[in-house]
Amino acid sequence: MNHKDKSPQPSDPFAPARINRVRQISERGHYDRESIFAILDRGLVAHVAFVDGDRPVVMPMAYGRDGDRFFIHGAKKSRAVRATQGFAVSIGVTLVDGLVVARSIFESSMNYRSVVLHGHAMEIDDHNEKLHALRCISEHNMPGRWSEVRAPFDSEVKRTGVLEVAIDAASAKIRRGPPLDDYEEIDLSVWSGVVPMHTVIGQAIADSSVPQDVPVPASLSGISKG
Amino acid sequence: MNHKDKSPQPSDPFAPARINRVRQISERGHYDRESIFAILDRGLVAHVAFVDGDRPVVMPMAYGRDGDRFFIHGAKKSRAVRATQGFAVSIGVTLVDGLVVARSIFESSMNYRSVVLHGHAMEIDDHNEKLHALRCISEHNMPGRWSEVRAPFDSEVKRTGVLEVAIDAASAKIRRGPPLDDYEEIDLSVWSGVVPMHTVIGQAIADSSVPQDVPVPASLSGISKG
Repeated sequence: MNHKDKSPQPSDPFAPARINRVRQISERGHYDRESIFAILDRGLVAHVAFVDGDRPVVMPMAYGRDGDRFFIHGAKKSRAVRATQGFAVSIGVTLVDGLVVARSIFESSMNYRSVVLHGHAMEIDDHNEKLHALRCISEHNMPGRWSEVRAPFDSEVKRTGVLEVAIDAASAKIRRGPPLDDYEEIDLSVWSGVVPMHTVIGQAIADSSVPQDVPVPASLSGISKG
Repeated sequence: MNHKDKSPQPSDPFAPARINRVRQISERGHYDRESIFAILDRGLVAHVAFVDGDRPVVMPMAYGRDGDRFFIHGAKKSRAVRATQGFAVSIGVTLVDGLVVARSIFESSMNYRSVVLHGHAMEIDDHNEKLHALRCISEHNMPGRWSEVRAPFDSEVKRTGVLEVAIDAASAKIRRGPPLDDYEEIDLSVWSGVVPMHTVIGQAIADSSVPQDVPVPASLSGISKG
């Protein structure tokens, strides 16, 4: 599947199918773009799985998207770029919202929002398309930063392998709310509940090379992940 | 490789080899147990990659460890348990410590601590070994909780598939510190630096079923992830 191929798909890749159907506790499964994109847009790191020889390999990678177009990148010569180009990948993005502390180990869990994408990675060759994808990846983590800094050198773009992942299937799985101790003889003297967790963005630390009169840039206020 | 096979390995699985060598920015690679375990012990969720048919599949899973023994679990009938049992897996655990805001997009990055394990998953059949592994998974996220609640029912243990991952290779990759704008004509009027991020554990929320005189348990004070 070429990254420039915009022809309509015979079926919606976001519909539940064999590869992406949430089977365990199926009511936690979501297949709509709104749910899936909301999670992707809050994540910082994707775990990208591919097959290298006969083994699965997973690697954490930055990412970005533009509508249904999902982008990752790495050094042109890296294994992640070479081994995924043209091949199937599976991509996980998970946000942990807290621990679910039940009155039993079995019912203890986490509250989370996760997405798993199944797709095929295609390297982008066109210089302007690469710039667009790199901009999507940059803006994903730090909206506005792209226009605050110099344009990438051609040599930098050349050394970077940029992949578009054509999404074959996708699903979100979400757990919210209190523990569900679902058995007889619940011991009410045992505490149960939820311990929330969230990501906090700390105060920016200027590099020692930054002159005192250079203000913190506007883009830093747009960071909102986790 | 059977999970009960404690015979010494011909070579240390934590030594750098083809499968686990950190190639891109190789000075970020670490292969010692101390570095690898420190990251594993701070993570909440592992992204477990396996091959299902001819496709890679990645899934977020809770985990625990006991020395070199790494444990994951899922519903006995789940795809993750059935498709990994006896097969190669790759497991990623990543902690994001902040955004690295360089004066160029190319040098912008994240500060992070990540581990990738490569191993083989073997289902644990023995009831007591399963209990031990489940306890390691439980204690990983909430030390002390296991002994605050009732013992698992046999039926719960039976419905749970527990896998030990025999580690074939492992590596950590760590980025710390300020951006490294490494090119000529750096524009000092552009801010650069680091935006730290960390996980905050919120105040525990008791379930509505908890009587007012039941205190928050001691185990909750042991939570320290992210």
